[in-house]
Amino acid sequence: MNVFDAVRSKRAIRHFSDRPISDDDLSKMLNAGRWSGSSKNIQPWHFVVLRQRQRLEALSRCGQFAGHLAGATVGVALVTGDWHERWPVAFDLGRAAQNMMLVAHELGIGSVMANIYEIEQANSVLELPPELMCYAAISFGYPVDPDALTRPPRQDGKRPLADVVHWERW
Amino acid sequence: MNVFDAVRSKRAIRHFSDRPISDDDLSKMLNAGRWSGSSKNIQPWHFVVLRQRQRLEALSRCGQFAGHLAGATVGVALVTGDWHERWPVAFDLGRAAQNMMLVAHELGIGSVMANIYEIEQANSVLELPPELMCYAAISFGYPVDPDALTRPPRQDGKRPLADVVHWERW
Repeated sequence: MNVFDAVRSKRAIRHFSDRPISDDDLSKMLNAGRWSGSSKNIQPWHFVVLRQRQRLEALSRCGQFAGHLAGATVGVALVTGDWHERWPVAFDLGRAAQNMMLVAHELGIGSVMANIYEIEQANSVLELPPELMCYAAISFGYPVDPDALTRPPRQDGKRPLADVVHWERW
Repeated sequence: MNVFDAVRSKRAIRHFSDRPISDDDLSKMLNAGRWSGSSKNIQPWHFVVLRQRQRLEALSRCGQFAGHLAGATVGVALVTGDWHERWPVAFDLGRAAQNMMLVAHELGIGSVMANIYEIEQANSVLELPPELMCYAAISFGYPVDPDALTRPPRQDGKRPLADVVHWERW
């Protein structure tokens, strides 16, 4: 799958089948995150990989819309410790997450993001030291409905280009 | 180029040739950003496209390491207005930026991020209304050295997988 088609066809997948993700594919996804660029090459991330159902369920209760984690085949909790410059750190985590999700998509594996709001609770679930935090996690898995992976986009799902793009100035 | 190879071979490119970027390729890159997923599908972004040398130079002076913008063929300033929840907005902008940079890479176009620290100055360069801000911009262009696009990674440039990945818990 070329990059443009992967970007264009990527959909959020929230319902996952029981089909396991191979170790080889999981390695590819994790490396895709690890290889992402970051501000000053700080690589301000740890990836905690969850496959135990009980732990996935516990993390799914740490965000209002994180319920899909409970049914994920693999959850990847994005953990960061460098909180002094929030903006670049969060931005870089987004880049790494996108790398992982696009490579997963190419492998036929669906994904969706969850924001984590119950920070202390998530810290306890992941057994993190107090200086580390998890603000976001990714659910991965083969979709229950294979067609869901590349279903047509919702009408009016995205703002039109003319609304998003400005030329030279506002 | 498949997604995995694009992710693996992407390098930061800071020196750009005079070769123009076609409108068609620029549209692909901007759409790649626009199509990115975002928290609650808010799409908290505007992309201000800069090609005038003077404006690129002005924006390059708004960040300590943003000098490469002065020589970019195209600069894309990422502008956001939703500042109430910094973390998800910055994260989503990172996802959109990664989409744009990976599609550019597939097209043979190099890119690199710049963080913008002089917020008021950038606001003035881009003629933004006061409620909007630019915290990051992307330089795009064909590399001066075509081999730079896929040069081998630096030794020890990335933290090893065993340092980044944890299983089930910290």
